[in-house]
Amino acid sequence: MSRHGNIKRILPALAEKLGDRLSVSEAVRQHHGTSLTYLAPALPEAVAFAHSTEEVSHIIRLCNEADVPVMAFGTGTSLEGHFLATEGGLCIDLSGMDKIVSIHAEDLDATVEAGVTREDLNHALRDMGLFFPIDPGANASLGGMTATRASGTNAVRYGTMRDNVLSLTAVMADGEIIRTKGRAKKSAAGYDLNALLTGSEGTLGIIMEITLKLYGIPEAMSAAVCHFEDLESAVKTVVETIQTGIPVARIELADALQMSLINKYSELDYAAKPTLFLEFHGSEQSVREQAEIVGEIAAGQGSGDFRWASRTEDRNKLWKARHDAFYAVQANHPGKDFWATDVCVPISRLTDCIMQTYDDIEKTGLVAPLVGHVGDGNFHLTLVFDKKDPAQVNRIEAFNGRLVERALKLEGTSTGEHGIGIGKKKFMTLEHGPALHYMQAIKKALDPKNILNPGKIFDLED
Amino acid sequence: MSRHGNIKRILPALAEKLGDRLSVSEAVRQHHGTSLTYLAPALPEAVAFAHSTEEVSHIIRLCNEADVPVMAFGTGTSLEGHFLATEGGLCIDLSGMDKIVSIHAEDLDATVEAGVTREDLNHALRDMGLFFPIDPGANASLGGMTATRASGTNAVRYGTMRDNVLSLTAVMADGEIIRTKGRAKKSAAGYDLNALLTGSEGTLGIIMEITLKLYGIPEAMSAAVCHFEDLESAVKTVVETIQTGIPVARIELADALQMSLINKYSELDYAAKPTLFLEFHGSEQSVREQAEIVGEIAAGQGSGDFRWASRTEDRNKLWKARHDAFYAVQANHPGKDFWATDVCVPISRLTDCIMQTYDDIEKTGLVAPLVGHVGDGNFHLTLVFDKKDPAQVNRIEAFNGRLVERALKLEGTSTGEHGIGIGKKKFMTLEHGPALHYMQAIKKALDPKNILNPGKIFDLED
Repeated sequence: MSRHGNIKRILPALAEKLGDRLSVSEAVRQHHGTSLTYLAPALPEAVAFAHSTEEVSHIIRLCNEADVPVMAFGTGTSLEGHFLATEGGLCIDLSGMDKIVSIHAEDLDATVEAGVTREDLNHALRDMGLFFPIDPGANASLGGMTATRASGTNAVRYGTMRDNVLSLTAVMADGEIIRTKGRAKKSAAGYDLNALLTGSEGTLGIIMEITLKLYGIPEAMSAAVCHFEDLESAVKTVVETIQTGIPVARIELADALQMSLINKYSELDYAAKPTLFLEFHGSEQSVREQAEIVGEIAAGQGSGDFRWASRTEDRNKLWKARHDAFYAVQANHPGKDFWATDVCVPISRLTDCIMQTYDDIEKTGLVAPLVGHVGDGNFHLTLVFDKKDPAQVNRIEAFNGRLVERALKLEGTSTGEHGIGIGKKKFMTLEHGPALHYMQAIKKALDPKNILNPGKIFDLED
Repeated sequence: MSRHGNIKRILPALAEKLGDRLSVSEAVRQHHGTSLTYLAPALPEAVAFAHSTEEVSHIIRLCNEADVPVMAFGTGTSLEGHFLATEGGLCIDLSGMDKIVSIHAEDLDATVEAGVTREDLNHALRDMGLFFPIDPGANASLGGMTATRASGTNAVRYGTMRDNVLSLTAVMADGEIIRTKGRAKKSAAGYDLNALLTGSEGTLGIIMEITLKLYGIPEAMSAAVCHFEDLESAVKTVVETIQTGIPVARIELADALQMSLINKYSELDYAAKPTLFLEFHGSEQSVREQAEIVGEIAAGQGSGDFRWASRTEDRNKLWKARHDAFYAVQANHPGKDFWATDVCVPISRLTDCIMQTYDDIEKTGLVAPLVGHVGDGNFHLTLVFDKKDPAQVNRIEAFNGRLVERALKLEGTSTGEHGIGIGKKKFMTLEHGPALHYMQAIKKALDPKNILNPGKIFDLED
C-alpha cells in the first residue's frame, strides 16, 4: 500500500515547527531525491532542514503517528540509492547540524553532529596534531558515513567506521533519543547497539551525534606511486605486502584505464598502467623501513620506480587525484551513466577475484575502470553505460550479479563499503541465508510501522 | 512463572539423541551451576555435552518447543553469574567442541569451535609465527570469550573480542543455524549481527564457531615491571604513556596489596608497592625506543628501575603471575568469599576514578586489592568478604553501587570486560537509560519465549 499522501496530515504541524526550514519546492525535492549514480530519482514529498536532535525527535513522532516514511540526508553522496524516497515521505536534511560538539584530545575522541563532514572535522583537528582517518571518496558527512559503515583508503591501517565509532546518539522510530555508550574505550555492558546502528543505513534510527576515535598525526608520512606492466603483478605486490605484516597506511590500486582517466582529469603524467598508490606512517626510521620492504616486494613483481611525494602539498595532490577517481570517470564520459559497485574478499582470494572479474569485463565488452582499497581485499568498478539502452542495462545487471556471486564464493561480501541501499538488496539472501530473517526481525521490533528509510537493505515479508 | 520441571517432557528425546552425554547427576549439575564468585549457585536440571552444531540446533528446537531455559557453558570462569540456571533448564556444555576448524595464515584468521580455549589456540598457532592476543585472566573458551565480549592485558594494543571476531556461527532460539559474515576483512552488507551476538551473553544465540583475527608474532618483545611510591604516580605514568601515543602492547597496574599477594602466591620478590607490568612489541629498534620513552615518563613520576624480562620464559613467568592475580587473592584468604568487579572510564578520568575509589575503600574499611588494564581505563577490584555476614554483604553491595555510579559519572561504563550477567543487571537503566528498552525489544524479537539464558543482562518487562 503506497504511503504517498500520508504526509499531508502533518504538513501544517511540520511547518509550524520548522517555518521556512520545511520545503516542498520541486527543486529542493529533486536535489534530495536524485543520487549520484544509475538509480532512478525518487523524490520525497517534503524536505525538513533540521537544527537539533530534539527537533528531529519531534518530527519523527509526528511521522510515526501518521505513517510517513522518513529518510535522513547528509551530503547525498551515497552510491546505492540510500536516501531515495521510494515510498514518498519526508527527507530530513542534517547538513545544518554541523557543530563539532567537543574534542577530547587527551582521550583521542571527538563528538560531532551528523552533518559535519570528514574534511570539516580534520580541518578543526589539524592544529591539535590529530586526525580522523576514514575517507570515502566524497567529502561525506560523518552521520552518513556512520549510517553506511563507510571506509576508504586508510581502512587497511585504521579500520572502518565500525572500528572508529565510539558512541552515537540516535532518534529511534518512536521518537525516543538514545545514546549507545559512554566514552570509555571498551564496555561489556549489554548489547552492542553502537555497532548495530552503525551501518544500518537509517533503517533503525536517525544518527544525530557521533563520538569518533582520533589519532595523532604520525611523526613521518610519505607517499609514493609505482606502476606495473600488468594488473596481476600489482595485486600480487599488495597481497605479499599485507601478508608480510607491513603496517602500510594506504595501499590503493588503479588499473590502466582508470590511470589514463585520472591523468586527464587531474592533469598528471603518471604512466597509464596498473598502478599502486602507497602511504607509510610512523617514525622517520619506520617509514623508511616500510618503504624499503615494499619497494623490494614491488621490484620482485617487476614494478617501475617509486615516485615519491613527501611534501604535504604533493601528498595532498596525489590523494586528491585518487579520491577523484569516480569524478574522473564521469568527466571523461559526458552524456553517459555510471554504476559504481564494490565487493570485498579475503586477501588470499584477491588475485583470483580481480583476474576473473577482468576476464568477465573483457568478455562482456564493458568500459569498467577499476580502483580499490586492495589492502583490505576491497575493489570498485565504475561501469560506464547508457541507461536508456535496455540491452546495456541488462548486460551490466548480469555482470554485477556475477561479480557478487564470485566474491561470495570466495568467502567475501557483496559490498565492502558502499552498502546495500536499493542496489544490492537482491543479493542479501544469497549472502546471509537464514541470518537475513533475524535482521528483518530486528527491524520489525525497532520500527514496527517501517517508517525509517523503508525498502532499504531488504524488503520485509508481510 | 517458574519453568522448573518443563524439561521433564523432553528428557527422553534428549537422552535418545545424546546417550550418556546427557547427565542429571547432582555432581555434574553442581559443577555447571556454581560460579567462581560470590553469587549463589543455581543448578541446571540437566547437562548436555554437545558434539556438533547440528546437535545443538536439534536440542534448542526441543527446548524452545517445551519452554525450557538453555544456558551455554564453556570453562565456567565468567565472573557475573553468566551461566547460572536461575530458572532451571538445560546447560549445554561445549567444552567437547574443541576442534580448530581451519587456520588461514595468509589471511591472518582462524576458525575454531566454541570450546577451544585461548591457550589451545595459541599452542596451535605458535609454530606458524602467529598468535591470538585476547587474554582474560582465566584460560577461558573462545565461545565464552565471544559471548561476554572479553578482553585482557593486550586489549590496549590489539582491541577486545569486539574487534577480533571476524565472523561467527550461532544457533538461534528457534534452532536455526546462522553465520554472521564471510571472511572478508570488512563488509557493509546489512546489520552487524556479528557485533550484536558478540557480548550478548548467550541471550540471543548459542555461539558455536568463531572466526578470529590473528597477528604475526612480533620480531621483538620485551617486558618489564617497575614500582612507584604511590598509586597516583603509577596511574599518571599510564595516562601520560597512552596520551603520548606509545603503542604499548600491555600496561597493567597492581596495587601494593595485590603485589604482596602475587609475591606470596607466585613466589616472587617484587616490591610490595604500586607496580606497572609493561610489554613492548615491534622491531628491535622500536621496542627499544618505546621502552626508553616510557622509562622517562615513569622516572618523571619517581618510579623505581625497570626490571626486565626479555627471555620468553621470564616473560611467561611475569604474565602468569599477573594472570593469577585473582587466584592469588583467593589462596591468601582461605574460607573467605570473593566479589570481582570491574569498571572502565576514559583515560583522562582514570586518575580521578581510581583515587576516589581508593578513598572509598579506605573509608568503607574493605580488603580490595586492585589490578587493571589501565591503558584502556579499565580496572578491577577483588572484594574479600564473608557472605554469611549480612552486614559485610550490604557494605560491599553499596560500595559496588558507588563504584559504578562514579564510573558512569565520569562517562565510563559499569563493566569494561566482565559483562553484566546477573551481578550488574541493576545498573543497566542507570547506564543506558531509554536505550535499554531497545535491547529488550531485540531480545523479544529474536527469542520470543525467552529460553536463551533468561534473566541475564536485564529482566524483561511483562
